[in-house]
Amino acid sequence: MTTPPLPGADPAHSALLTDLYQLTMALGYWRSGRAEREAAFHLYFRTAPFGGGYAVACGIEPALAYLEALRFDDADLTYLASLHGADGTTLFPPDFLDALSKLRLTLDVDVVPEGTVVFPTEPLVRVRGPLLQAQLVETALLVHVGFPTLVATKAARLCLAAGGDPVVEFGLRRAQGPDGGLSATRASYVGGCAATSHVLAGQRFGIPVRGTHAHSWVMAFDDERQAFDAYARALPNNVVLLVDTYDTLDGVRNAITTGLRLRAEGHRLDAIRLDSGDLAYLSRQARRMLDEAGLTDVAIMATNDLDETVITSLKQQGAPITIWGVGTRLATAYDQPALGAVYKLTAMRDDAGAWSPRVKVSEQAAKTTIPGLLQVRRYRVQDGDPGEVGQFAADMLVDEHAPPPDGDTVMVDPLDPTRRRRFAAGTPWEPLLVPALQAGKRVRDAESLDAARVRARSQLAGFHGGIKRLVNPHRHPVGLELGLHERRTALVMEMRGAPGAA
Amino acid sequence: MTTPPLPGADPAHSALLTDLYQLTMALGYWRSGRAEREAAFHLYFRTAPFGGGYAVACGIEPALAYLEALRFDDADLTYLASLHGADGTTLFPPDFLDALSKLRLTLDVDVVPEGTVVFPTEPLVRVRGPLLQAQLVETALLVHVGFPTLVATKAARLCLAAGGDPVVEFGLRRAQGPDGGLSATRASYVGGCAATSHVLAGQRFGIPVRGTHAHSWVMAFDDERQAFDAYARALPNNVVLLVDTYDTLDGVRNAITTGLRLRAEGHRLDAIRLDSGDLAYLSRQARRMLDEAGLTDVAIMATNDLDETVITSLKQQGAPITIWGVGTRLATAYDQPALGAVYKLTAMRDDAGAWSPRVKVSEQAAKTTIPGLLQVRRYRVQDGDPGEVGQFAADMLVDEHAPPPDGDTVMVDPLDPTRRRRFAAGTPWEPLLVPALQAGKRVRDAESLDAARVRARSQLAGFHGGIKRLVNPHRHPVGLELGLHERRTALVMEMRGAPGAA
Repeated sequence: MTTPPLPGADPAHSALLTDLYQLTMALGYWRSGRAEREAAFHLYFRTAPFGGGYAVACGIEPALAYLEALRFDDADLTYLASLHGADGTTLFPPDFLDALSKLRLTLDVDVVPEGTVVFPTEPLVRVRGPLLQAQLVETALLVHVGFPTLVATKAARLCLAAGGDPVVEFGLRRAQGPDGGLSATRASYVGGCAATSHVLAGQRFGIPVRGTHAHSWVMAFDDERQAFDAYARALPNNVVLLVDTYDTLDGVRNAITTGLRLRAEGHRLDAIRLDSGDLAYLSRQARRMLDEAGLTDVAIMATNDLDETVITSLKQQGAPITIWGVGTRLATAYDQPALGAVYKLTAMRDDAGAWSPRVKVSEQAAKTTIPGLLQVRRYRVQDGDPGEVGQFAADMLVDEHAPPPDGDTVMVDPLDPTRRRRFAAGTPWEPLLVPALQAGKRVRDAESLDAARVRARSQLAGFHGGIKRLVNPHRHPVGLELGLHERRTALVMEMRGAPGAA
Repeated sequence: MTTPPLPGADPAHSALLTDLYQLTMALGYWRSGRAEREAAFHLYFRTAPFGGGYAVACGIEPALAYLEALRFDDADLTYLASLHGADGTTLFPPDFLDALSKLRLTLDVDVVPEGTVVFPTEPLVRVRGPLLQAQLVETALLVHVGFPTLVATKAARLCLAAGGDPVVEFGLRRAQGPDGGLSATRASYVGGCAATSHVLAGQRFGIPVRGTHAHSWVMAFDDERQAFDAYARALPNNVVLLVDTYDTLDGVRNAITTGLRLRAEGHRLDAIRLDSGDLAYLSRQARRMLDEAGLTDVAIMATNDLDETVITSLKQQGAPITIWGVGTRLATAYDQPALGAVYKLTAMRDDAGAWSPRVKVSEQAAKTTIPGLLQVRRYRVQDGDPGEVGQFAADMLVDEHAPPPDGDTVMVDPLDPTRRRRFAAGTPWEPLLVPALQAGKRVRDAESLDAARVRARSQLAGFHGGIKRLVNPHRHPVGLELGLHERRTALVMEMRGAPGAA
């Protein structure tokens, strides 16, 4: 099994990249004799981001790299030894810290491969193993998976809005810290972006890098024409001219002059870039001017706080823009900067060693957890199904501790249990979760970023367009296997002491 | 001069933490003979975040550490040598890469010290030096300063809303990448947070860490009372019990039982934590129950998507909550996840070596830049000024290339030039920008995080309350020195070819 170079540096791989309560609970489990009790946790989200219908799972490989390498080093232990409780006494005793120093994860971890299209309630990561270990990794898993999934999803939305035009990610300067920027660029590429301005991400991940000049380049010369010519002379093989430093249409005229000279010298002007003003109007004017000058091969790129809504609107207005640069709105997931992913205990062995499902009840039905050791079956559309539904019919959560019957399988909508659907025995499905670590060791080769990117694109193509709509998307059917639904309902009613409970 | 250990790891210190266009422009300046031409850039924001009246400058020390250490290493140069232009030829020629390998920054950098309260248009960082260098560092400065300033400001708003109660930062799991989390925790502390759950930030920055247990702890035991007792036995010096796993008021009863036992054993229950439901109602019920049991010293902590608005509302409802845990909304700056900081060229030496102001004109008046080499004078309130205005009267931008007259100084509101204010000669002021690097070397000792935190708190206390209001804040007067205003107006009119321009 090969492991790629670790993405990111120190912080992304520190055993202290965690909340203190993971360590106090670890001490508690260790002292109360529950540390080795086998437990199952699932990482998932409750609502698709950006008001959309889906998410693109991302950050999975970095999360696995974190788990594989997790160690408490001497500096970590020295720091933990220095912490005190409210009464000034030591928080972590030496024997516990000694146990931490020897800790090597033995967890079984199943994941949806990076780039998988996922829906609310579906586990992206499933962790099974000793309670202390499975709890300990919660925070790191959430931070490694949550934000990248958000950005990959945003990138997918942008690319769908751009309808096949390249979308280039330009967000580093607005990113949330240096490797907030790294994660964002990586996830943007998984979600479909064609390139980035971010050089470090180019080096680390092999993502194509793009860029030419800023307004300050133009301002550093006596006039715009001089600035454009100087750039074209210096880098004749990489010319995209930013035309709006002073007056956009004057800028287009100056770019045309430079573009014709480049052509005469055997080079070419790749594109002009518009960064302000009425992009629909200006792009049409610029296109006409470029075409009249014979520069029909010069593309028009647009930037300036673009998002999927603005791109859709510009497309509807017929703006002849064919390259889209997106920064802030993508790199910060501006309109929803947190996925709200959670990591929940769903089963534990009881004193006798039998698996016991666990549920967290909430007044909000959608927040009540789904107990068990879950797998997701993605059913494909069959011949005879009504047309125009895409390639995938439904996703069904099943409990691997209590597999469904061999015959027909019934799926229940957890938000409306009267909505049910029957799958005949033998209906083909694929499991979304695949084994990644067993007893703490990789059992699945680390994937290239391009493999994840191809998966995202091909899965997105397989879903019905209604699910990918920006406004009021159709909900992909995700349900519980009937037996799972019934056991969960009984468990919740029992916990609530509900009348009529078994 | 001492330098603290570098915060963050690799990505935060890579010379490739930049946009490609900084490097293509560097090549362009190098080829066009302008690389060494002296230039001035300023980093600032145009609008105070979160609809508020101010920001707390943060990320300054990490930015300086970045500049001080900037080097292109062999791996960086190998990567850059591998890049190609649109026609497949090499983007960066060997002689340029050789120049990069020898590059050592010789910039003069002035900064507002970390924790300074700042307002729109005021430079947080001023960079003066060779054009190639000053341009090259743009992206890294923006990524180091923008997000931390946003989070420090959010923390200040939260702490003001909490009215002196401790606010604890719990956001790592929702943070934007591992060191997005590190930057967020560091900035939260500068902005006033009392502690964090984030252990790595505790180790790196010496920030107090806090935490006890999650819902999963309770779910891992047969019932809540057993879980609470097990926790109290394991860590009797660090007990905050989360009471809402099943039923909140039942949870409070169970916590009281454990609290009384702890007290009998010479320990104490520090607090209970509410994480869902009607926090106003539940906190009042819980307070009454705790008090009736004699546990008047047990605090009530609240969490669950809190922000400054919710905290204000709970305070107004008289909720007896005295510790506030804030995660997602703080660590991601949820309601405005990008500051929108910019870095603009404002002056350059001309061919004859004289400083020439530069301006970027925009159809939006607020986006037109302020030319010159800027300093900010913060004037204090004088005897005889109308009362109740706080400690600071106004901030005035002046151009150090053309200092204001020795006599009275007139300040002009750039958004309404008919609004003016006169400061008599000798009126005391403090400069906001102080020298940090000269010729690339530190001339100001790196500060401790606590110094920045104290500065933020004391400066915030000095401003009039209206400026700190959450809704419709008062605008602190920030203007241009009259001569600067007049030169800027003339320059803009000249660039626009406006009728009547000189």
